[in-house]
Amino acid sequence: MLPLLTRIDHVGIACRDLDAAIARYEATFGLQVVSLEVNEEQGVREAMLAVGTSGTSGASGDNLRPGYVQLLQPLGPDTPVGRFLARRGEGLHHVGYGVQDIGQALDAFGVRGVRLLDERPRHGSMGASIAFLHPADLGGVLTELVEAAGPA
Amino acid sequence: MLPLLTRIDHVGIACRDLDAAIARYEATFGLQVVSLEVNEEQGVREAMLAVGTSGTSGASGDNLRPGYVQLLQPLGPDTPVGRFLARRGEGLHHVGYGVQDIGQALDAFGVRGVRLLDERPRHGSMGASIAFLHPADLGGVLTELVEAAGPA
Repeated sequence: MLPLLTRIDHVGIACRDLDAAIARYEATFGLQVVSLEVNEEQGVREAMLAVGTSGTSGASGDNLRPGYVQLLQPLGPDTPVGRFLARRGEGLHHVGYGVQDIGQALDAFGVRGVRLLDERPRHGSMGASIAFLHPADLGGVLTELVEAAGPA
Repeated sequence: MLPLLTRIDHVGIACRDLDAAIARYEATFGLQVVSLEVNEEQGVREAMLAVGTSGTSGASGDNLRPGYVQLLQPLGPDTPVGRFLARRGEGLHHVGYGVQDIGQALDAFGVRGVRLLDERPRHGSMGASIAFLHPADLGGVLTELVEAAGPA
């Protein structure tokens, strides 16, 4: 069986004030924002900050892509991230892993009995196709699969 | 200023039963355990499971290393991870970022006013030198710095 996960794509961090969180990560770690979007479907305003640099070769697959810190501010209290903040406060919200083919990955996880929060891929950051797996089947960890938009 | 963080090194996940958690991550994602250790100082039994494959070149620094899922079972209730489980249950515990030189990194974070939970590097997984930064200064995210033991 081929490994389905190609890399740790990002860590998703819930925050109350996106601009303050960006400023903190920029000032503390020297990270830079590479994408800033509103995702109405998911109810968030979000920033992606690159960690590390991508490799010079595009031939070896997407394990040479950088990872990202994804900062998430809810668009309102009645959103998944809004409810997370009310229940748990600011902090780590989910982890996203890279996959080569998200359709294939969702089929595989369905077969393995992991509940899918998304039966079909949705629109994620930076044009990616994404889907979430149920945290109750993964030790309390909300887990996202990410098929990146372009070649590495 | 050089970027201090070279990659997302790992996500740390707190679990009650390490063997069950390993079995779940193996069966679900096909991940493999590359290290299994007891760290008495940190009060954990832990496993590292590699995500993705490292690059073939060692010349470009440690951004070509794989990332890891780190599964953590506390050695007892009166340990940091034991208290975390009692308070929040199983799930994401911390994120670890790679750094080239952990001594230099700790000096830099001290200067930037981020509180250090470890003033000096400690022993981490797979022979790494590690140190934790205070979550209160990083939006509720317990953050670990990791200088890997060997060349990439």
